[in-house]
Amino acid sequence: MELLHTLCKIHSPSGNEGPIKKFLLDYINKNKSTWKQVPEVYADDEELQDCIILKFGNPRTAVFAHVDSIGFTVRYQNQLVPIGGPDAQSGYKLVGEDNFGPIECELEVNKDHQLFYKFGRPITTGTDLTFKCEFDETEEYVTSCYMDNRLGVYNALKLAEDLTDGVIVFSTWEEHGGGSVPFLAKFIYENWKVRQALIADITWVTDGVHPGKGVVVSMRDRNIPRKAFINKILENATDSGIDFQLEVEGSGSSDGRELQTSPYPFDWCFIGAPEENVHSPYEKVHKHDISCMIDMYKYLMKVL
Amino acid sequence: MELLHTLCKIHSPSGNEGPIKKFLLDYINKNKSTWKQVPEVYADDEELQDCIILKFGNPRTAVFAHVDSIGFTVRYQNQLVPIGGPDAQSGYKLVGEDNFGPIECELEVNKDHQLFYKFGRPITTGTDLTFKCEFDETEEYVTSCYMDNRLGVYNALKLAEDLTDGVIVFSTWEEHGGGSVPFLAKFIYENWKVRQALIADITWVTDGVHPGKGVVVSMRDRNIPRKAFINKILENATDSGIDFQLEVEGSGSSDGRELQTSPYPFDWCFIGAPEENVHSPYEKVHKHDISCMIDMYKYLMKVL
Amino acid sequence: MELLHTLCKIHSPSGNEGPIKKFLLDYINKNKSTWKQVPEVYADDEELQDCIILKFGNPRTAVFAHVDSIGFTVRYQNQLVPIGGPDAQSGYKLVGEDNFGPIECELEVNKDHQLFYKFGRPITTGTDLTFKCEFDETEEYVTSCYMDNRLGVYNALKLAEDLTDGVIVFSTWEEHGGGSVPFLAKFIYENWKVRQALIADITWVTDGVHPGKGVVVSMRDRNIPRKAFINKILENATDSGIDFQLEVEGSGSSDGRELQTSPYPFDWCFIGAPEENVHSPYEKVHKHDISCMIDMYKYLMKVL
Repeated sequence: MELLHTLCKIHSPSGNEGPIKKFLLDYINKNKSTWKQVPEVYADDEELQDCIILKFGNPRTAVFAHVDSIGFTVRYQNQLVPIGGPDAQSGYKLVGEDNFGPIECELEVNKDHQLFYKFGRPITTGTDLTFKCEFDETEEYVTSCYMDNRLGVYNALKLAEDLTDGVIVFSTWEEHGGGSVPFLAKFIYENWKVRQALIADITWVTDGVHPGKGVVVSMRDRNIPRKAFINKILENATDSGIDFQLEVEGSGSSDGRELQTSPYPFDWCFIGAPEENVHSPYEKVHKHDISCMIDMYKYLMKVL
Repeated sequence: MELLHTLCKIHSPSGNEGPIKKFLLDYINKNKSTWKQVPEVYADDEELQDCIILKFGNPRTAVFAHVDSIGFTVRYQNQLVPIGGPDAQSGYKLVGEDNFGPIECELEVNKDHQLFYKFGRPITTGTDLTFKCEFDETEEYVTSCYMDNRLGVYNALKLAEDLTDGVIVFSTWEEHGGGSVPFLAKFIYENWKVRQALIADITWVTDGVHPGKGVVVSMRDRNIPRKAFINKILENATDSGIDFQLEVEGSGSSDGRELQTSPYPFDWCFIGAPEENVHSPYEKVHKHDISCMIDMYKYLMKVL
Repeated sequence: MELLHTLCKIHSPSGNEGPIKKFLLDYINKNKSTWKQVPEVYADDEELQDCIILKFGNPRTAVFAHVDSIGFTVRYQNQLVPIGGPDAQSGYKLVGEDNFGPIECELEVNKDHQLFYKFGRPITTGTDLTFKCEFDETEEYVTSCYMDNRLGVYNALKLAEDLTDGVIVFSTWEEHGGGSVPFLAKFIYENWKVRQALIADITWVTDGVHPGKGVVVSMRDRNIPRKAFINKILENATDSGIDFQLEVEGSGSSDGRELQTSPYPFDWCFIGAPEENVHSPYEKVHKHDISCMIDMYKYLMKVL
């Protein structure tokens, strides 16, 4: 969990994914020689911006893990504008850096739901702030900001260790309107005809999804993936013997939405651990669901 | 109208268009040798998912008819989540099938507009339900669920009988966020440079659109097609002598939206019969408007 | 400012950009021989609809200026439906033309915010109306309808006079859902690998953006461009010595949104003068901000 902790601390709100790209490239280049299959690494800034693509063997399926997070942008005076849909409550600690140095300030929400920061000095307009990471691990749970989606990234890096055939895609901007999946989809479809995708992301604990009951296979959210593909996933998930739960929602979205509306015929399915305290500094995930998520990805990437 | 009745009964909510694809492929392969021009049939699952493309002669214009319908997905316990925007009223009969067998149950809507089913046993999570088809034909009207858009599909199949040059596209997911039109547009533009499209879909009876007054040519809805193309359609529609009505709306959308935002320079126009009782089990269309729709498509596909 | 006045008067609501395309092509063909570098002009109706692309030398960066405007479509009886998001107030004068001749009528808004026209005769369904141009120039300000975005177009034409390397794109439909940027992005990326874009459009005077304080460089609106590119712009803007202001907003959008979600890895930044009385007949822009906008574009297109 040391790696997960490190990932959760990296400042990388939507639009500013440079820092986590750098970390991931370093990690991949340091570790890839120990992996079962050494992947081809694609990370050209001009072609892929702050995204990374790893290609292992003869891929049939791609795993998408977004590397960005929700956060806040400093507007004028002490005003803040949200990045994505953060849970905003007075007293949350925010961190960042501007030309005057590092920042640790406090979020303030007034009764009209307007957002402000409290800090000893003005912060430069346009500076982005993220939750301060207070990582906590117990026997059963991991709690931290940005489990969504550093856990998906962690899952992808664990999968990478013994993946023989497949693509791993680290995408950007997922929390705020998207924008990288269209060119990523183009890249992997045009180069390798890959048109199956698993979305490695974090979902919600609800009245039908419970912590500790296994990884979630989402049958739909705001978007409806193709039934034929979902059925194929479910058959394989059942065969795997790994604990999993079904999800059916009318809202919520993911990189799957952009795959569906891309000019390429992608099938996709969202598979991820559920969390409590969504988009807050205290995103809480059960460890059994984390290990089921990793096991399920390792299993599915072999059989799909 | 036997064919239309058969089409209206097929279970095919957005995301689960496999059954209607199978029916259409069977119908096309059985009948195409009797058509004036035998089309090339494209229906590869890997390339086109559950869509079908028919290519006749040297095409200049494509007709888009979506094959999916609105419906409901079973969530947890007896909860339902809508597929698309169904008219939901307590007492409507819903049908479907899960691993325990066929289902005919009843829709229940509580005062908070939450949706439930009433049935003698639990239904498997993720099962999709559609309205039970109660097809009714009088001298003047046809009433059934899913006239939207089985009538557009019927229109396309009637058009196919004597079409010499053109493309017919059966698209998916239209009722729920779209997703197939981008790759369909890519396919027909890149293969045949087709960049004119008619959207064969069903619209609304309003204070300006009346049953029995002819097919509707929509000048705009939520989306605004290019004026130059609309004018060209209207000139030809006038020349045709076939009854038609103009529509101008600020809301509503169709496959035209996705053509407009695709990376291909499509011109498009929505042309279809108007209905009452939109998205209910009792979608009601005047027979004169149906025959005007078919006649108009046959005429326009010759002259555009 | 004569050219700006002329541009503001041209009837060209979203979807009906034919008239301004014709004007621009005439202007470009008449003037391009006097420009420092004669551009290649792309304006094929089948490939680019009502858009125009000018290619100068070896381009690295594209400037996007949308040519459409907000307005109104005549529905049934005396009803109007908005095109884009016009400021609608009773008494505003609207102009247009239908098959019965030219129109100058009055906008009427009832207490339910429904829109009507007052005119001596019925206007043909589907006719589009725009604000009557009442251009006013003082020592400090220019006031007119459609400064958004005829000023962006004017800026592009001024830039064209001494641009040596770059692309200028005149786009359509920006005010109403977009639709041309996807194929424009495809064209300039696939032909010349151009993947940097500046959005020449008009923004708002707010509590952080003031008239007369210089051109606005927007760090974000509803969409968040890539931080690395924004920082590059800001460094160069600072070096330029030209007055500019920073903007940070949570809402508002531009052609940048469609570049971001296109299947091409575009970086983009919105740069434009701020206005008061947004989307009304009295859009008011400070002349200093206009000259800073033109100077900034000339500077940035050299150094980016």
